[in-house]
Amino acid sequence: MRKNLGTRRQPEESRRAILDAASREFAALGVAGARIDAIAGEAKVNKALLYYYFRDKEGLYGATLEYNFRGLLDELLRILDGEGSAGQKMLAYALTHFNYVASHPHYRRLVQHEMMRAGTGSSVHFSKLVENFFRPLLQRVVATVADGIKQGEFRQVQAVHFVHSMVAVIVFYFTAVPVMKEISGIDPLSPPALQVRREAMLDFIGSALFVDRDRAAEITKHLLHASHPQPSGKRLSARVKGRAK
Amino acid sequence: MRKNLGTRRQPEESRRAILDAASREFAALGVAGARIDAIAGEAKVNKALLYYYFRDKEGLYGATLEYNFRGLLDELLRILDGEGSAGQKMLAYALTHFNYVASHPHYRRLVQHEMMRAGTGSSVHFSKLVENFFRPLLQRVVATVADGIKQGEFRQVQAVHFVHSMVAVIVFYFTAVPVMKEISGIDPLSPPALQVRREAMLDFIGSALFVDRDRAAEITKHLLHASHPQPSGKRLSARVKGRAK
Repeated sequence: MRKNLGTRRQPEESRRAILDAASREFAALGVAGARIDAIAGEAKVNKALLYYYFRDKEGLYGATLEYNFRGLLDELLRILDGEGSAGQKMLAYALTHFNYVASHPHYRRLVQHEMMRAGTGSSVHFSKLVENFFRPLLQRVVATVADGIKQGEFRQVQAVHFVHSMVAVIVFYFTAVPVMKEISGIDPLSPPALQVRREAMLDFIGSALFVDRDRAAEITKHLLHASHPQPSGKRLSARVKGRAK
Repeated sequence: MRKNLGTRRQPEESRRAILDAASREFAALGVAGARIDAIAGEAKVNKALLYYYFRDKEGLYGATLEYNFRGLLDELLRILDGEGSAGQKMLAYALTHFNYVASHPHYRRLVQHEMMRAGTGSSVHFSKLVENFFRPLLQRVVATVADGIKQGEFRQVQAVHFVHSMVAVIVFYFTAVPVMKEISGIDPLSPPALQVRREAMLDFIGSALFVDRDRAAEITKHLLHASHPQPSGKRLSARVKGRAK
C-alpha cells in the first residue's frame, strides 16, 4: 500500500495533482456528484494520501475553491499594486480578469456551483472565500476608483456599485455562453469572438468611468495591442521607427 | 377521486395554481429534487389533473419556465414598443428588467438552474426558451440601440455587445447577493439597498451609452421619480408650484 502514497513525487506535486483533478471533477459534477475515487485515480494517488491531505470531501472541495481563486487574486493584485494611473489599472484589471475566466473553464463552473450553494446557505466555505478573496480584492479596487475620482481621471461614481457593475460586465459573458451560442450559432469562446468581446467590454467600462472618453479609448488600444501584439515583422518595423513601447 | 380534480375551480385557475406551486418547488430544489406530490399538494389539485395538463415532470418544468419568462417579456416589449426616444426606452427597459427580477425570487433561481443545465447540455427546454424569449427580446433591444445611434442620441457602440453588457449590469447584482451580504452585512434586497442600486445601475448604463451624459441623468431622474413618487404632501406642493410631471 505505502508504495503508492506518492513515493516518487514531492508532496507539493501530489497535492497539486489532486487539486487539478478535483477542479475538473467538482466543476463537472458539483460537490454532491463528485467521486473521491475518480479524483484519486486521475491524480494517480492513493485514496489514503488524499484523505491524509484533505480529510474528507468537503475539505477537498474547500481547498479546491481556494486553489482556483488564489490564481486569479494573485494576478489581479499584481496589477492593482503595480505602476500606472488609476485608469490604466482599472482597464488592465478588467482585461486580466476577463482573460483569466476565459482560460479557466473549471473556475467558471466552480464559481457557479458555489454561488448556488451560498444562495441556499449550504456552503461552509463561503465565509472563508469572502474573507480571503472577495473582501481584500473589493477593497483594493474600490480604493483605485476613489483614487481616480480624486485625481480627476474618473467621474463621480458610487465606487462600490461601479466595481460591482464592472465585474458584471466582465464575468456575465461566460454565464450567458449557452444563450449566445444558441442565438448566434457562433461559439462565444472562440478566439475571434473573445477578442470582439474584449474590445466591447473595455469600451463600455471606459466610457462609463472616465471623464475623458478618448483617454479611455487610448489606454484600451494600448492594452489590447500589448496583450495581442502584431506579427513580429510589423513589430520590428515599428521598433525601427522608434514607436514600440 | 374525480371530486378533487378542480371541480370548484376553472381550468385556467387550477393551471395557474399548479404553475405557482411548481415555480416555488423547482426554484428551491431544481428539477432533480422537485417532488410532484408536493407541487400537487400545495396547488390543492389531484396528481391526475397535474399529469393531465403537463404530462410529466419535465413537461411541468418546461411550462414553469415559460410561465415565468412570459411575465418579464410582456413588460419589456410594452416598453420597447411604446412611446419615447431610444434613450428613454433603454433606461426604462433597464429599470423595468431590474424591478421584475427584484420582485420575482423564483424567477431568479429558475434562471440560475436553467443556465447550469444548459451549460451541460442537459436541458430539453433551452432551445424553446431562446426562440420564444431571448431571441425576440434581443432583436428588439438591439434595434432600439441602432435607432439611438442613428438619431445621434447614442455613441457608436457595438449594439449586440452593448445589450449584453447592459443585461449583465442589471441582473448580475442578484447573482452576487450572497457575496455582498457577507461583505457588507447589509441585505442587498432591502428596499433602500435596491434604490441605491437602481440609481448606480442607470448611471453606469446611461454614461456608457449616451453621447450627452447630462441627458441620460435627466431621463434617469425622471424615471426614478415616476416609479418612486414623493409623499403626497410634497407632490401636492410641487403641483401647486407647477413643477409636477
